[in-house]
Formats: sequence, structure tokens, C-alpha cells
Amino acid sequence: MRTLSSFLSGTWQPGSTDRTTVLYNPATEEPLAQVGRATDLDKAVAYARNVGGPALRALSFGERGAILKQMAGLLHEHREELIAVSIASGGTTRGDAKFDIDGATGVLATYARLARDLGDKPWVVLDEPAALVRTSKIRAQHVLVPRHGLAIHINAFNFPAWGMIGKAAVSLLAGMPVLSKPGTSTSLLAHRIAELIVEAKLLPEGAFSLLMGSAGDLLDHVGPQDVIAFTGSAYTGALIRGHQKVVAENVRVNIEADSVNAVVAGPDLESDSELFDLFIRDCVTEITQKAGQKCTATRRILVPSKILDEVQEELVERLDEKANQTGNPATKGVRMGPLATKRQLQDAREGLKKLAKDAPIIRGNPERGEFIDVEDGKGYFLEPILLRATPEAARNPNAQFHQTEVFGPVSTLLPYDGSLAQAREIIGYGGGSLVTTVYSDDRKFVAGTVAELGPYLGRLVVADEKSAGGSFAPGCVFPQAQHGGPGRAGCGAELGGRLGLELYMQRTAIQGGASQLARLFGKPKSSD
Amino acid sequence: MRTLSSFLSGTWQPGSTDRTTVLYNPATEEPLAQVGRATDLDKAVAYARNVGGPALRALSFGERGAILKQMAGLLHEHREELIAVSIASGGTTRGDAKFDIDGATGVLATYARLARDLGDKPWVVLDEPAALVRTSKIRAQHVLVPRHGLAIHINAFNFPAWGMIGKAAVSLLAGMPVLSKPGTSTSLLAHRIAELIVEAKLLPEGAFSLLMGSAGDLLDHVGPQDVIAFTGSAYTGALIRGHQKVVAENVRVNIEADSVNAVVAGPDLESDSELFDLFIRDCVTEITQKAGQKCTATRRILVPSKILDEVQEELVERLDEKANQTGNPATKGVRMGPLATKRQLQDAREGLKKLAKDAPIIRGNPERGEFIDVEDGKGYFLEPILLRATPEAARNPNAQFHQTEVFGPVSTLLPYDGSLAQAREIIGYGGGSLVTTVYSDDRKFVAGTVAELGPYLGRLVVADEKSAGGSFAPGCVFPQAQHGGPGRAGCGAELGGRLGLELYMQRTAIQGGASQLARLFGKPKSSD
Repeated sequence: MRTLSSFLSGTWQPGSTDRTTVLYNPATEEPLAQVGRATDLDKAVAYARNVGGPALRALSFGERGAILKQMAGLLHEHREELIAVSIASGGTTRGDAKFDIDGATGVLATYARLARDLGDKPWVVLDEPAALVRTSKIRAQHVLVPRHGLAIHINAFNFPAWGMIGKAAVSLLAGMPVLSKPGTSTSLLAHRIAELIVEAKLLPEGAFSLLMGSAGDLLDHVGPQDVIAFTGSAYTGALIRGHQKVVAENVRVNIEADSVNAVVAGPDLESDSELFDLFIRDCVTEITQKAGQKCTATRRILVPSKILDEVQEELVERLDEKANQTGNPATKGVRMGPLATKRQLQDAREGLKKLAKDAPIIRGNPERGEFIDVEDGKGYFLEPILLRATPEAARNPNAQFHQTEVFGPVSTLLPYDGSLAQAREIIGYGGGSLVTTVYSDDRKFVAGTVAELGPYLGRLVVADEKSAGGSFAPGCVFPQAQHGGPGRAGCGAELGGRLGLELYMQRTAIQGGASQLARLFGKPKSSD
Repeated sequence: MRTLSSFLSGTWQPGSTDRTTVLYNPATEEPLAQVGRATDLDKAVAYARNVGGPALRALSFGERGAILKQMAGLLHEHREELIAVSIASGGTTRGDAKFDIDGATGVLATYARLARDLGDKPWVVLDEPAALVRTSKIRAQHVLVPRHGLAIHINAFNFPAWGMIGKAAVSLLAGMPVLSKPGTSTSLLAHRIAELIVEAKLLPEGAFSLLMGSAGDLLDHVGPQDVIAFTGSAYTGALIRGHQKVVAENVRVNIEADSVNAVVAGPDLESDSELFDLFIRDCVTEITQKAGQKCTATRRILVPSKILDEVQEELVERLDEKANQTGNPATKGVRMGPLATKRQLQDAREGLKKLAKDAPIIRGNPERGEFIDVEDGKGYFLEPILLRATPEAARNPNAQFHQTEVFGPVSTLLPYDGSLAQAREIIGYGGGSLVTTVYSDDRKFVAGTVAELGPYLGRLVVADEKSAGGSFAPGCVFPQAQHGGPGRAGCGAELGGRLGLELYMQRTAIQGGASQLARLFGKPKSSD
């Protein structure tokens, strides 16, 4: 079987093969490749930090942006090949594969464009100089400078392309070298992309490393200038955040973890509107896209009690359709593929048992075995599942649908009274999420959601009748908007245009005479 | 003996007196008061969060700012009384006491002024709307909204006024209720300020709580919307960051810990200049002010080898003077007081033994026993100590003066070759600091320090001949400039004008139609 190598210390290394992990096609269970256990991670970290760091920082923002642009071109050029790898190794439909790969290209292109506004100095100026004391000429002003460490990216299995490249684009533009560890089960795609990047020699030596398989003792080698950005389970997130060396060195850590995202049908939503159609369409997308294996997928659907039956009827009908189109994603006409691994399927079924204690399943059979073009009993398939809570259960802070993210095509209908107070209460029980979408033309209600739901969210999508036609499903993460959320979602923040650079740069206050700051950072726009 | 109560759940509570801690005058060892152990912290936390939070958020930024202004007036009104409390309980000279108390007033006044620019909406708009896709009207824009939790402030003993009020001012303006735990040994001053605040009834019920003595099981009650801001030792910082509940709930944590700050005499610094005089004056201030018990005090003095002897001669002469003015701070003419506790004195003496292995003491006797107006053997005094490293020792990354902060009037002279590369190397061995100051008129060198030293610092002070007359000593933390630093310094950031609000607010991306965002957040300045 083919063994996938890591790219560390500037060379491809197969690693130790005494303990290997095998990757499977999740629709057919055909073995695809194996990965060994990388060694000498101390050297790999030092090499990236000491060779890649200075080389990247020697380039201007503009030069680093130009590399991102070339990387975007490279991915686009190999798009069809990458889609095929994704379908075979990730269980993705063609649409899912494009979502992941084009998402990666999109982040590269966006940050390449952003680079043009960052100037040719080795810093980003954040604000205007502020006087410290009224009678003095001494001022303070804040800049961002690239950290002198390594950006360690530990990614989830669900977006091997977007996850790896989305994080890398921001780090590289900021001036930090990257060591990327893909989620193992779907890492064939990440590995192929890494091969393309290395072969194309677009990046300076040491600026990009790939660690396949287990993270091993990687975290024992972190230092105070490093940044760890992790996407994955809350359990692993807590291990990273609490890791002895990470704590001792005060390493900057960013975590995107579980998230029981919600959507809120506003009190004014009516069933014969374009906004209602968008609401239903988005719900179906966010339940079934990538078989619900998205950190931004919708897990809780808040609906005013008065229209709950209508919403249920529409949703069930559309999910029935998707259920009949679930199967081997390599087959034409299939609209939903399997979960990524056997373990994921087991976890999802166990999670569903928990959820069902507080809200019965009203659509779907977690044990269903037959799917399109799939050998009986093979593959890690789960059909779309919809649950429905009572109004009392919806307001129970301990209900499992507020606490447990089942990482598959699973969502729960939650009735509420249509008030902002109750929406805030129910959203809050999620303990912090990546995204919530509100569908409403009630301007007061919408403004209220910014203030009242905002603290629980990394992103709030506000959809109204006017924008309904051109809206994007809320689970689509655009690089211009922050990705991350408080509490259960990990208390992290990535992307968000220029804001995203802050993760990989050090914010430093520069204090000095007004004329000296003007010489360094340009004349202030307003004189104080 | 007087027992100092905590102010929790809206009432003064003496706490359990089965285990009390006694506070002493550190110059005379006279016992001043005792503190018990607070109970029912679960209730206190819930009360602050659920009563104080909504009440504060019901006020506008302007209204909260007006309260800060009144608090500043209150402190100023009681300034003389507070100075007396500080001298008796903190071992501070009158100058040190003013530094702490006026610092507190200054943060209140600065954030009160800032409030006027924040508008009357419940959010702060951070940027302009960004288009997501060229052909679409959907935009993303970022806002800050107050978190719905409690701001837990765990402060150090060295700034009972500034530490408590500096953190509180920012939280309260952001809209987060505060529970403040002062450093116990000097908490008499924090307690008196809290009494004034509570008695004046300026703040809404529940918005301010005071926890005296031990933190007890406080951290067992934190939640995902809370923020913990800690100032103190790296050891305690690591306990907080690694605390099981803090990790499990992904509580936002900000830490200011040890910091081996440096100053750098530039390659061009000459001894007969105003800038040289400023350099010496600042060094003396940063060694002796508050007997060196400042997180921003200068611990490492980088000097080009060619002028090291001159610098040493000047510094020793000035420190000799201070050594002769060290004693009971209540006595006129005393310019430096004792350390805060017996334990601090022991720790400093032990730390000095470590430092002296890598750099001999060239001025001061750590065991000196006689001081002005102090009964023989009483008080926790340490006279100014200066050490000097060889050029080889200065470049040893494992040298103790790079690693160990001795929290007293202690600093080490480090020769270097005057190059930016060596300055960066030596500064970097500190593993991340709060502040470094560069004294130079060499524009290229200064610009280089921004890019090369910046990543290791929370604040860089650039002092040149032109601004030398009006400069402030680098250890003075102004609320307009960020306070915090990477790595060893805790990887935190507080203050910094408007940036400081980010610690207590949730940054949320709002995604929606261009017209809807314009309605919520105002028309964008530039149309894209």
C-alpha cells in the first residue's frame, strides 16, 4: 500500500512504519493509503522556525501576497484532480468537494488582494497616535509585527483543503511559517495539495511543513513566539489548551471546537415569502451539505410555535428527497455521501441516542443500511435525521440538543414564543457558537439580536426578504468574516480579513515623540 | 483587630474567621488588619452576572463613562486619605503612593473621555462592511458587544489602586460587571477604595464586587461568557490558565506575569547628551520606584561595551544616593521604602543568589539591615542592587538574568556590541516582556527595533534627543498604550484605549445585505 510521507525539515519523510494508520474510502471501505509516525519533530519545528521564519519575514506583504495568488492559481489548475481525490478519500459529493477546494482557493485569493493594502513596511499600523498627557508631545500608537515563531495548524478531517489552506494563507501573509497537521482520516487530499505546493517551489525554504498522522510529541517543542491554531473536538482542544508546555510557555492558542449552531425564524416569518423559502433551503443545505460534517452546520432550528408544523412539513419533505439521494458520492445523482469514518458513524449514532432522550426523532432512521450504489452494509452512511422538541424541552438548559453536537446530518426543531428574550435564552444554552442566522424583516427584532445574541456568537447572519435572493447559506465561511466563537465553540477567532492577521502577529504599542512616530508610521490623519 | 470584609452579593461579608490572614505595615511589621475567608462564592458570581450584568448593559456607553468620571472624582477627593493608607499598608513613599492612586484616577478619566466617542448603540463598530463576492450585495462587518458574563479580576499586591481600578474601568465601560480580588498583603488600600465606591452608590447594584483574601473555589464557578484577568506570578498564572473548569468552559483568560524588561542604549548614545541623562534617570527610576516592585521595572540594561564603564559609574553613584535614602516611607526625606512582605524579601534574596551566579553584584548588599527610621532588624527592606554580566554571559540564553525576575530594586548591566542583531538576540532570551525602551537618535536602528524587538514586547518606548526633555519613564503605564506582553509576560493585553475594550466584549461578524448593515451600523465611508 502507498505510504504518505510528511514534509518536514525541507524533505519528504515516510516516518516510522511500526505503527501505521490506514485511510479508507468511506463509501466503499476500500483502503487507499497508510501513514506512518513522523519522527524528529523537535528538529522539524526548529527548522521551520529558524529557516522559514526569517525567509518569510524578508519578503514584503506584497511579495507574500503574490505567492498566495500563485498558490490560488495552482489549486485552480489542479481542481479536477483534487475533486477526484476528495470524492474518493473524503466521501464528498462533487458539490461538497468543490465547496472545500474552492473555499481554499478563495481564502488565498482574498488574502492576496488584502496584501496590496498593507504597504511595504514590515508592520501593520492599527490606529492613530494617541496623546498620553494633554501637555506632552509623547504619543502611543499600535502596530502588528510578525511573531518570530512557528504557526502550528492542527486541522479537522472535514475540510482537508479549506482548513489547511485557510489557516496557511493568513499565517504566510502575516509572515509566520506553517507546520500543518491534517486530520488523518481524510488527509489524502491535504497531502496532494502539499505535494503541489512543495513541487511548485512557490514558498521560501522552511515556510511550509506537513505533518501526516499523529501529532506525536509536537507540543513538547513549542515556544513563546509560536501560535497553535486547532480545529476539532472540544476534548482535544482542552488537551491542547491545558498541555503543560503550552501553559508554561504561554503559547498563543486558537481553538475552534464543538458548536451547536442555531437558526432563528423571526416572529414575523410567514410561509408564503421568499424569506421563508430561503430559510427552508438554508436549513436543508446546513443539515445535508458534507453530510452535516461542518462546524458551522445548523444543529438547532428555532421556530415560532405558530409556524412550527408548517416548517416541519416542508423540511421533512425536502429531507426525504435528500435521503433518497444518499449514497456513493462517485455515482451521478447522489447528493449526500457518507460520514468520514466508522468511528464518526458510531459517535453520531451514540449522540443521537442522547439527543432523542430530550427530543424524539421525527424523520430518519439512524440504523438505515441501504444506500445508492453501495454494497450492502458497507460505508459509513447516516441518512438525514430531524428531531423535534417540546416548548418545555427547548427551554431546558440541560437538554442534550443544547450541549451535544452530533457531527452528521442531524438537527432539532425547537419551538419558541417568537420573543427576543426567549431566543436569547435558548441560543445562550448552547454555551457559545460559531454562527446563528436570523430570518426576519422586523428591524427592531434584528437590531436586538445583534446586541443580545452577539455575545454568544462568532458570526450572526441577518437575512431579510430584500436580500433573500442573493443570500449565502450560513455555513459557508467567507474569509472576510471572522470564523470562531466564544465558550463551547472554543473562544477563538480566525479569518475576518485584516483582523485575521492578529492571530499570527504581535500587537505592540510604540510610545515616543509625535515627530518620531510620524516618521515611522506616517503622519496622523487628524491632529490631536 | 479590625477584620476587612468582602463585598459580595450586594452586602459586606466578613467571611469565615477560622483561617485569617494578617496584614502588616512592611516598614514596621505592625499588624494592621485581618481578612477572613469568603464563602458562598457560587452565589456571589451568579449575583454579579445576573444582577450586575443586565443593569450595566441597560446603560449606554455615555452613561457608563459618566460613572467612571464620577469615580475619578471620588478618588481624587479622597486622595490624601488614600495616600496615607498606601504608605502605611504598602510600604510606599508618598511618590509611590501617588503613582498608584493617580494612576487609577487616570485610567478612569481616560476611559470616561473615550466613552464619548462610542455612540449610543449597544455595540462598537470595528470596521467597514466588506463584500464577500464581487457580484453580491451581501457584506460582512465586525462589531463588539458586551459579554454576558462576569469579569473576574485577580490583582497583584504591588498596585492595589491602579491594578484594581485600571481593570475595573475598562470592564465597566465595556458593560461587564466586575469581581475584584486584590493581592492580600496590600489589600487595605483596595478595600478602602471599594468602600468609597460602594458608599457613593455610583454603580448599579451588582456591578462591582470585592473578594478579600484567598480566591477559594472561585474558579470552580466560571462560565463561558466570563473573563478572567490576572496579574501576578507566572506560577499562579499557569494554575489559572490550566484550571480544569477554565479549560473546560473555554473561559477567556488574560494574564500579565513575570517580565524581565530591558532598556537598550543605542549604538549612538553618547555620555554628554540629554538623551544619556534621560537614560540614566529612567534606569534609576525603574530600579527604585516602588522599590522595584513593578511588572514594568527594568531588569536588564543593554549598553554598548564601549560606554559600559561610564554608564556603570553614573548609575552606581545615583543608586548609592537612593540607598542612603531608603527607610520608613512615613519619614520625610525617604525616597525608597521596603518590599511588601517578608516572603517577597526572602524570594528576592534567593533570586539574587541565582542571578549572581551569572553576573556578579557590583553595587549593594542584599543582607543590609540598617535603614532610616527603622527599628533594627524590622521591616522588609532591600537596598538597590546592580549586577554586571560579561559579554559572554549576556549572550547565554540560559543565564538567570534572562529568566528570573527578582521583584525588587534589582537590575543587571549587559554589554552588547551595539548591533540590532545582538540587541534582538539578547532581548529575545527574555522570552517575551511587557516593555523595552530604546535610547537612540539612529533612525535606522530605531526603525529596526520596531520590527525586530516588537514581537517580543507589549510596548516599545523609543526615546530620542528631541523628546528627551518631556519623556516619561518607561515603567509608567498609560491607559492609551497596551499593557501586556507575549510569552513569559503572560501573552496578554490590557488597556490601549479602545483596544482595551476587546478583552471584555465579544467580537462578532455580522453578515447581511448592504442596506441592512447600513441601517444597523451607519453608511460605510467608502463604497466598494
